[in-house]
Amino acid sequence: GSIALDSIATPRGRCEEVLGGSASYACAAASFFTSPGMVGIVGDDFPEVYKSLFDRLGINQAGLQVVEGKTFRWSGEYEENMDNRRTIRTDLNVFANFTPDLPEVYRGAPYILLGNISPDLQIHVLDQITRPKFVVADTMDLWIELAPDALASMISRVDMLMLNESEARHYTGHHNLLRAAEEILVQGPKYVVVKKGEHGALLVSRNSIFALPAYPVGLVSDPTGAGDSFAGAFIGALAERGDVGEMDIRFALGYGTIVASFAVEWFSLENFNGLQRDAIDKRFAAFREIIRFP
Amino acid sequence: GSIALDSIATPRGRCEEVLGGSASYACAAASFFTSPGMVGIVGDDFPEVYKSLFDRLGINQAGLQVVEGKTFRWSGEYEENMDNRRTIRTDLNVFANFTPDLPEVYRGAPYILLGNISPDLQIHVLDQITRPKFVVADTMDLWIELAPDALASMISRVDMLMLNESEARHYTGHHNLLRAAEEILVQGPKYVVVKKGEHGALLVSRNSIFALPAYPVGLVSDPTGAGDSFAGAFIGALAERGDVGEMDIRFALGYGTIVASFAVEWFSLENFNGLQRDAIDKRFAAFREIIRFP
Repeated sequence: GSIALDSIATPRGRCEEVLGGSASYACAAASFFTSPGMVGIVGDDFPEVYKSLFDRLGINQAGLQVVEGKTFRWSGEYEENMDNRRTIRTDLNVFANFTPDLPEVYRGAPYILLGNISPDLQIHVLDQITRPKFVVADTMDLWIELAPDALASMISRVDMLMLNESEARHYTGHHNLLRAAEEILVQGPKYVVVKKGEHGALLVSRNSIFALPAYPVGLVSDPTGAGDSFAGAFIGALAERGDVGEMDIRFALGYGTIVASFAVEWFSLENFNGLQRDAIDKRFAAFREIIRFP
Repeated sequence: GSIALDSIATPRGRCEEVLGGSASYACAAASFFTSPGMVGIVGDDFPEVYKSLFDRLGINQAGLQVVEGKTFRWSGEYEENMDNRRTIRTDLNVFANFTPDLPEVYRGAPYILLGNISPDLQIHVLDQITRPKFVVADTMDLWIELAPDALASMISRVDMLMLNESEARHYTGHHNLLRAAEEILVQGPKYVVVKKGEHGALLVSRNSIFALPAYPVGLVSDPTGAGDSFAGAFIGALAERGDVGEMDIRFALGYGTIVASFAVEWFSLENFNGLQRDAIDKRFAAFREIIRFP
């Protein structure tokens, strides 16, 4: 995925050039369950403090390329409702010429998350994995317009596609999320996860549906990275569990929503800094009570 | 509540002067679990066929006033996304001078649903109930602007307030639904239910939260009456259960979402016509699997 320095304004505050990007959020979220290997690129201006954070979280950085030039920058602004965001500026910088070549040690990895980057690069990563056990891909609106063929080809090769509500509608032309998910299943994946932000997620397979609410957060400071954190914690928890049956998947999605709830409570990856597994498990237990149906 | 003849246009079709209104939907939905007594008013033009439907569903009509004049008419149109609707015309007719005076036989009723009408009338109904065991009130946006004081007074006297997402935000000024619900709790009710349509519902009390997804419907024809059906089936199922602990409430909310899912699959109350409890229970069982968290 991407590693970025984000400048973000939300109704709760603003921050400048803080750690962001799909790979950062996803690897940090996965790190609470497993030892993830990061694949990404940064410039020689990438702050040492963020590398230390990756170290402390136990993220393997063998696949992190550090090259001459500037790190990817993104800036955006959220409206009062936190649902709509406006991109103010995107400077790809070193990310523009990124080729995700995997170190040898990554190639046998069983659990793969293709974070949100161009579907061509997602395919390139997948081509280097020798025998994946479970592959999840996240995507975003941009690629539906920009690279529909590569996107379709990528989707046909993964076990699970994650995308958000509006992307599912945009990609399939179906407003109904169940229809949208069913249409994507035809393209190959065993599972589709429609992410609905504060409304939770919908898991759809050929013969089952699973609806999971989100953990209700009292104060959302910054929604950036919520989807990436959800995906990262999901694949991390699945790896920890070591099996990929539907009940394992449902369980891991539960951890996805819990870790995402921590992510949005504060800006950037701040809330992951020093977060203990204990605190995650405590919230997970509270979540069980919140969704308990008699 | 109201009893109306609705003219509705949705992306799936249109219909003219068909049965509608909060009391119609709510009583029909409750009738699958208990023997509800209807309180409402219609004109002498109210079609016999709809009275027969009420009869067949076992709805007590002792509280249904039939007066000279025309029945309440409402017409509206839904946008493609089914979330936004536009009222084209409202003719209150006999509903304009409605005073919900309860027949003696209703006054000892333990389970009360104050359907969506003016809060003054909801209070008038409540004043006639001798010893209610559980009172739910539904409301809508209109009264927040038109009758805020009566609304606050009504809210202070009920066990549970149901309102939809945008109403909760509008009424409290909080975008965050948890904060909104907490603010309403301060006004008196033990429970607040925020209805989120296809995204389910949130039940909030002083010391608990319950998040329930909606039953995923593959084809929504007409969302009219979904909230009323949800409320009606909820209070009906609660009455059938005979207890009002939080787990009873959670259980009854499950029936609310199931009966609402039948309501929206076809226009007006068409799908309630001939609906068997068996079919409801079968979908309820499927829903259990859909929300099962391991």
